[in-house]
Amino acid sequence: MNIPHIDLPRIVVIGCGFAGLKFVKSINSKKYQIVLFDKNNYHTFQPLMYQVASAGLEPDSIVYPIRKVFNRKKNFHFRMAQVHQIDGEQNIVYTSIGSLSFDYLVMATGADSNFFGMKNIEKYSMPMKSLVEALNLRSVILQNFEKAIHTSDLNEREALMSFVIVGGGATGVELAGALAELKKYILPKDYPDLDIRRMQIHIVQGGDRLLPAMSQKSSDNSESFLRKMGVNVWLNVRAKDYDGHALYTNDETYYAKTLIWTAGVKGVPTKGLKADFTSSNRILVDEFNRVKGYENIFSIGDVAACPSEEEPYGLPMLASVAVQQGVKLGKNFNLLAKEKEMKAFVYKDKGTMATIGRNLAVVDMKSFQFGGWIAWLMWMFIHLMLLVDFRSRLVVFVNWAWSYLCYDKGTRLIVRKVSDKTEKKI
Amino acid sequence: MNIPHIDLPRIVVIGCGFAGLKFVKSINSKKYQIVLFDKNNYHTFQPLMYQVASAGLEPDSIVYPIRKVFNRKKNFHFRMAQVHQIDGEQNIVYTSIGSLSFDYLVMATGADSNFFGMKNIEKYSMPMKSLVEALNLRSVILQNFEKAIHTSDLNEREALMSFVIVGGGATGVELAGALAELKKYILPKDYPDLDIRRMQIHIVQGGDRLLPAMSQKSSDNSESFLRKMGVNVWLNVRAKDYDGHALYTNDETYYAKTLIWTAGVKGVPTKGLKADFTSSNRILVDEFNRVKGYENIFSIGDVAACPSEEEPYGLPMLASVAVQQGVKLGKNFNLLAKEKEMKAFVYKDKGTMATIGRNLAVVDMKSFQFGGWIAWLMWMFIHLMLLVDFRSRLVVFVNWAWSYLCYDKGTRLIVRKVSDKTEKKI
Repeated sequence: MNIPHIDLPRIVVIGCGFAGLKFVKSINSKKYQIVLFDKNNYHTFQPLMYQVASAGLEPDSIVYPIRKVFNRKKNFHFRMAQVHQIDGEQNIVYTSIGSLSFDYLVMATGADSNFFGMKNIEKYSMPMKSLVEALNLRSVILQNFEKAIHTSDLNEREALMSFVIVGGGATGVELAGALAELKKYILPKDYPDLDIRRMQIHIVQGGDRLLPAMSQKSSDNSESFLRKMGVNVWLNVRAKDYDGHALYTNDETYYAKTLIWTAGVKGVPTKGLKADFTSSNRILVDEFNRVKGYENIFSIGDVAACPSEEEPYGLPMLASVAVQQGVKLGKNFNLLAKEKEMKAFVYKDKGTMATIGRNLAVVDMKSFQFGGWIAWLMWMFIHLMLLVDFRSRLVVFVNWAWSYLCYDKGTRLIVRKVSDKTEKKI
Repeated sequence: MNIPHIDLPRIVVIGCGFAGLKFVKSINSKKYQIVLFDKNNYHTFQPLMYQVASAGLEPDSIVYPIRKVFNRKKNFHFRMAQVHQIDGEQNIVYTSIGSLSFDYLVMATGADSNFFGMKNIEKYSMPMKSLVEALNLRSVILQNFEKAIHTSDLNEREALMSFVIVGGGATGVELAGALAELKKYILPKDYPDLDIRRMQIHIVQGGDRLLPAMSQKSSDNSESFLRKMGVNVWLNVRAKDYDGHALYTNDETYYAKTLIWTAGVKGVPTKGLKADFTSSNRILVDEFNRVKGYENIFSIGDVAACPSEEEPYGLPMLASVAVQQGVKLGKNFNLLAKEKEMKAFVYKDKGTMATIGRNLAVVDMKSFQFGGWIAWLMWMFIHLMLLVDFRSRLVVFVNWAWSYLCYDKGTRLIVRKVSDKTEKKI
């Protein structure tokens, strides 16, 4: 691999999600050579991905070219490649474009959908863990409506117009809200030949409340917001099987051609690491995010877990955790370069929020919780500010303002042909 | 097909390019039932497609959902489908979603790349006649730079970084200029590991000047603009063969992994029409755009040609011709509904323009020609105004202002994997 050999320790970073991005941003690259691998040439702002899937935003608003983020960083090399395997004894990574030695390794490979072994659900459902999956989902939603027009079988038509979201976490709730807005404001105008009242949106949650990571008040608020918007909320219902048409559960059966799976995630560590893993395949790390059993291998973000008494499964897989871990580890490497000691990572919970629809969001702060219009404004402001650069903020703001004022969404293009269930998994 | 039967003549329109779109917009649908077929669910603003290919704009800025354009039109039905064949005796169209009878048919199927029988060029080159092709081209350009980093073969690296554009019409010239801007402002920052000076941009033109449809002055201007920007302009050079690596011509050989073909177009009429065709496969129509040999079948836009003494091959395949024909035919149908006579189509040439780069464009008006900064401002203003709606104008304006002020382009994402030459033709 064409990486220059220089007289600095080489840190190989795998993955440019929030954790990897913030790590590289924080580290002083006069002290280290940094080589970053990602299979994509862009960083994805995952919290807004559901808006790409529901035709509210275009990909360019929420993803950012990695080369551009770091084009002034010294001793930094990005390589668009898949890392196949690591050898933690010889300190080598094996990638799709060759192998490379390292002094330090930072694994920030993130998480992927967890289907808990349910093969049919994995085969026939639409996950939404990557930009490409979000774009596929959007194409499928729109294509199903095109198909619904020219079928004369009423059951088939309703199934084409219906959506089951499995999983009542933030992604599921936000997507359900976005689909309800499509149903209310957009689809009746776009499809005058269809009776949009027949469109069904179900959200199926295994536990007894939506947004289980948030307060009871926010769970109640989000449920009542969704019900008001016409979403069918099903609690204590666990998915069992799906054949592309019907979802079988411990309770009722739900008919829908599209099943969106947001009910589970698992870590995706690179092969070859001789570490311990949690039940959801996350790498066990210590308080410095060092992988247990190694001196020079670290892991941050969703793929890493440091179980404690308060958090027996490790911290939740959240962007804010990944961001803080990335920054902390970068700073720790800077301390190391000055021959100082690393500091332990402590998560600062600044609150959580979820948006359900127009003027409707829920916010949990340490001491109080609230929902409604103010929460929604706050959600929008914070998410705008979190976007990587001014240009994205401007484009997203224009899109949101447009949607709000005109009760319209910008884009509903079918640019990918996803014609068959078996093709969905790209 | 689920199209209601009502007591109005049914007009079937095939294709929603400029001609089809303007036709449907102009016709009074209280007098006719309109059924529009297109294989995509969007209309494409083709004049800006090269900016999608060169990573300047995202697709949503230049395409527009068809259902949204017409969501207030009465007696109008859009169907996303491919029309396979027509039967002009029985008055039936056969489509991918079933057959449909018509009273009138309007064929606005447009044009596609013409490779003049050169099979290898067709196989290995990248055309740019559709949005998907433009997105594929963008991914290939960026992927080739990623590949160039990790090859150690210098010839291979230069070939990956080099581009041959065959065809010196507006599309070729505009794309060459956009690539030259990428080379000057963007790629050196994004790829510090590559020596961008090795990137070669060739434009190969069979005739003795660029922009042959414009004035000699504009040809000369565009050539000198391109040369100043570092583009290699080759006149009187005709492509013969391409093997994915080298372009063979009547003159020199040019090495490049990417060949962009903008050198020829041909009409793509639907099968089954018993009409006469020009040498470039356009349907011969009379001055009312009626297909010769039929009473109730019309054709407009690029696919139609009405050769005259001044225009022995028919009018040029331009957006402005298609727009004017669409509007005229719509109005003619409105006259017909009032039992008045149709009026002959006469093309009003309002001038032509092409942009080459930052502050550089050429404009031909009837009585005078000019190039440079004023021409560039005029080009931008007119293209902004031609976009379908206010939202697109705003988004394109933000992108252009950003690029101009920051010497940057918004988006350079690889969202499609086009890994092999044989996969390019999707």
